[in-house]
Amino acid sequence: MKRNYRMTIAYDGTRFAGWQRQGSTENTIQGKLEAVLSRLQGAPVEVVGSGRTDAGVHARGQVANFRLDTDLSEGEICAYLNRYLPETVEVLSVKAASEWFHSRLNATEKTYEYRIVTGGRKAVFDRNFVYRTEACPDIEKMRAAARLFLGTHDFSAFCVKSSKKKSTVRTIYKLEVAEEGGELRIRITGNGFLHHMVRIVSGTLLEAGLGRKTEAELALLLQGGKREEAGVMLPACGLTLLEVKYD
Amino acid sequence: MKRNYRMTIAYDGTRFAGWQRQGSTENTIQGKLEAVLSRLQGAPVEVVGSGRTDAGVHARGQVANFRLDTDLSEGEICAYLNRYLPETVEVLSVKAASEWFHSRLNATEKTYEYRIVTGGRKAVFDRNFVYRTEACPDIEKMRAAARLFLGTHDFSAFCVKSSKKKSTVRTIYKLEVAEEGGELRIRITGNGFLHHMVRIVSGTLLEAGLGRKTEAELALLLQGGKREEAGVMLPACGLTLLEVKYD
Repeated sequence: MKRNYRMTIAYDGTRFAGWQRQGSTENTIQGKLEAVLSRLQGAPVEVVGSGRTDAGVHARGQVANFRLDTDLSEGEICAYLNRYLPETVEVLSVKAASEWFHSRLNATEKTYEYRIVTGGRKAVFDRNFVYRTEACPDIEKMRAAARLFLGTHDFSAFCVKSSKKKSTVRTIYKLEVAEEGGELRIRITGNGFLHHMVRIVSGTLLEAGLGRKTEAELALLLQGGKREEAGVMLPACGLTLLEVKYD
Repeated sequence: MKRNYRMTIAYDGTRFAGWQRQGSTENTIQGKLEAVLSRLQGAPVEVVGSGRTDAGVHARGQVANFRLDTDLSEGEICAYLNRYLPETVEVLSVKAASEWFHSRLNATEKTYEYRIVTGGRKAVFDRNFVYRTEACPDIEKMRAAARLFLGTHDFSAFCVKSSKKKSTVRTIYKLEVAEEGGELRIRITGNGFLHHMVRIVSGTLLEAGLGRKTEAELALLLQGGKREEAGVMLPACGLTLLEVKYD
């Protein structure tokens, strides 16, 4: 009998075409996971992720679910996956879940991190996981700007719209700008994020730190401003999905 | 007038043919540094490292010195180097040194770290900087073995000999086996290391942790035993030169 399983996954997204399976190409994280599970099952298995991550974006705690009919234990399924997945993807845990668990629909909270190495410094060991800039932003200005994003806003200025019908209102629970080991870490927690939203919010905070966006301008943008008036979208490499929470 | 400069360097050794310049190939860290400094000087500049690191070995604190006739400040030389070096090499600092400073001859102490991820676990983000094994060594057995290495011994069983004339006696000041974030970190400090010595000592400690080397066997090996009787040499990727000290 098929059971529903929930798994937590870490991946280095550098050389992947993102999370979502795309037609013929297998070079997606969802595609890799489905290939190994389908091989184990001897029939096609679908993996449902909590959300897509773009090409080049990383994860330390992506969550997904899948249905499988097997005698293997949770630990054995996890070991099987890790044996056949590439070294850039690790399944951290596999747990039997309720029949109704859906990793995307049931997610209540997500946390992303955007890492920026400033002042032209290099990042020899972390170069694939950070965005490097010559700029030297004022971290206090970034923190003041970050406070404006807390709460519920229309984020239409901070996303690439895929459809005009869908709501662009989201709630941000937490937005911190930390300085760790010579780099900035922007950590954002919310009930959900629009396409490219974290990268555009991060770019806007960086511009605020450089004095190129005033608090008044940001406050206006957060009432449903235009994409052109928000900050630049930072590159995918600096972004990592840290955690997905469920009730 | 030429002045003598001391620099500290970090590098990801994964795609380099090691530290030492080799004839025609430029794919060495020394070769890259000399190419940039020679370009700055408009004449050949030689870079003297504290010691070679093998192909695939990393460094967070390699030290080297070079002579340069320039009006640039220390910070400007450092910035020039970082601008033209690949993203896998960073010069952490450049300081004017005494005319007699020689990074290899004056070194009094070096510290290396060997990282091992055990139990078949993956290392998605650090995979180029660790050695992964299915084995699950007993860390206390590794620590007991490590204590035997402290002090002055004939390490001929723990090196690949380049010459029969040179002394194989070295002194180990510190040898720790730490457990950090699900991985083992072997940190070794000594007055100098023979070719491949840290990788063979690490392999021997791993075997001791798996019960394949007794303390009595190790004690004998440390009195100038045979290479065949010591442990395996672990791969280069897990090794990092952390620090070089001078009086």
